[in-house]
Amino acid sequence: AGSAGGTVLAAAVAVTAVALAVAAWRRARPVREVLFFPSPPSCIEALLAEAAEPGTPARPCTCPLPSGDTALSRLVRRLLSARRSLDLCLFSFSCPQLARTVQLLHRRGVRVRLVTDSLYMGLHGSQIGRLRHAGIQVRHDQHSGYMHHKFAIVDRKMLITGSLNWTTQAIQSNRENVLVVEDAEYVKAFQDEFERIWEEYNPANYSFF
Amino acid sequence: AGSAGGTVLAAAVAVTAVALAVAAWRRARPVREVLFFPSPPSCIEALLAEAAEPGTPARPCTCPLPSGDTALSRLVRRLLSARRSLDLCLFSFSCPQLARTVQLLHRRGVRVRLVTDSLYMGLHGSQIGRLRHAGIQVRHDQHSGYMHHKFAIVDRKMLITGSLNWTTQAIQSNRENVLVVEDAEYVKAFQDEFERIWEEYNPANYSFF
Repeated sequence: AGSAGGTVLAAAVAVTAVALAVAAWRRARPVREVLFFPSPPSCIEALLAEAAEPGTPARPCTCPLPSGDTALSRLVRRLLSARRSLDLCLFSFSCPQLARTVQLLHRRGVRVRLVTDSLYMGLHGSQIGRLRHAGIQVRHDQHSGYMHHKFAIVDRKMLITGSLNWTTQAIQSNRENVLVVEDAEYVKAFQDEFERIWEEYNPANYSFF
Repeated sequence: AGSAGGTVLAAAVAVTAVALAVAAWRRARPVREVLFFPSPPSCIEALLAEAAEPGTPARPCTCPLPSGDTALSRLVRRLLSARRSLDLCLFSFSCPQLARTVQLLHRRGVRVRLVTDSLYMGLHGSQIGRLRHAGIQVRHDQHSGYMHHKFAIVDRKMLITGSLNWTTQAIQSNRENVLVVEDAEYVKAFQDEFERIWEEYNPANYSFF
């Protein structure tokens, strides 16, 4: 009986070790994903509720939209994975769902910085004012050329970039692509570009007041 | 003397072997590049001349623009590396320099296919008409949403994608990014998207005539 007990114990230890190794490998495996739009109109309330209060079962949303797996829900999930920082460089930002996602991260203590284009910032439906009201740092260009980037960097380690402006029209109607890349070389290039722009658009340097 | 000759021969063989190995490794190493714009106005005549008639010394261009290494010249070099195919999926295409690059590839026997947005295709300065005249296959959307992609695939193996529309304004004035990625997984995702769009925009399916 002692020998059988020992065998069972050894087997349990082996199974646990394998499970831990698989989990570690999954965590360590860099994220690689391509999202294509248009994405059908979908509800992300359950995702936001789970992110706001982890572990609490989400109450079903009463809106008529489906809440399945879409390009938008995948993008939101990637953003919600932020723990420390979110750097955003967005030509235009008018999608309320993505604005709520960013606000939630800000409330959760993630350091959010947002660079945008000065012309598109003031357009009807822009979410920039709302994000500023919420206390999120926003900087914008002051030149004639457009700040046309559309990228996000999560925790200085995951790059989300592509053709997609963060507008509901683009998400639901346009042919668009978004690459999700966890690759130190690409991330560094974009992080450096972000820091250059962040400094260049420092309000202390604005000349048009 | 025989022994010294043998040593010299062995050393020469070793040096050659190392040089060949380095060259093979360089060729095999996948391209990874990030280009940021704006790119200063620059002359790409020497690049085009060399691509049109390899080996012939290029006559110096008489235009006043510098012909150094810029984001534009790097983009052109990547495109000119095409040997078999070039698949283009571009929201707007009005840059004459990039149009000449694509035409040169077409003349050199590279199979060029171009998908574009129906609305932007007819705008002032668009190069689409010129490319069609040159015999390049062009297809466009017929829906209300924009075909907003801005990517190119060279020889079904190198992906060039980002925020950059192929317009002189964007190249010279905007903050833009272009990723160059030689990675089978990302390339396949975009190649599949290209083929889907190419079929969907088949003129046989157009309904607005």
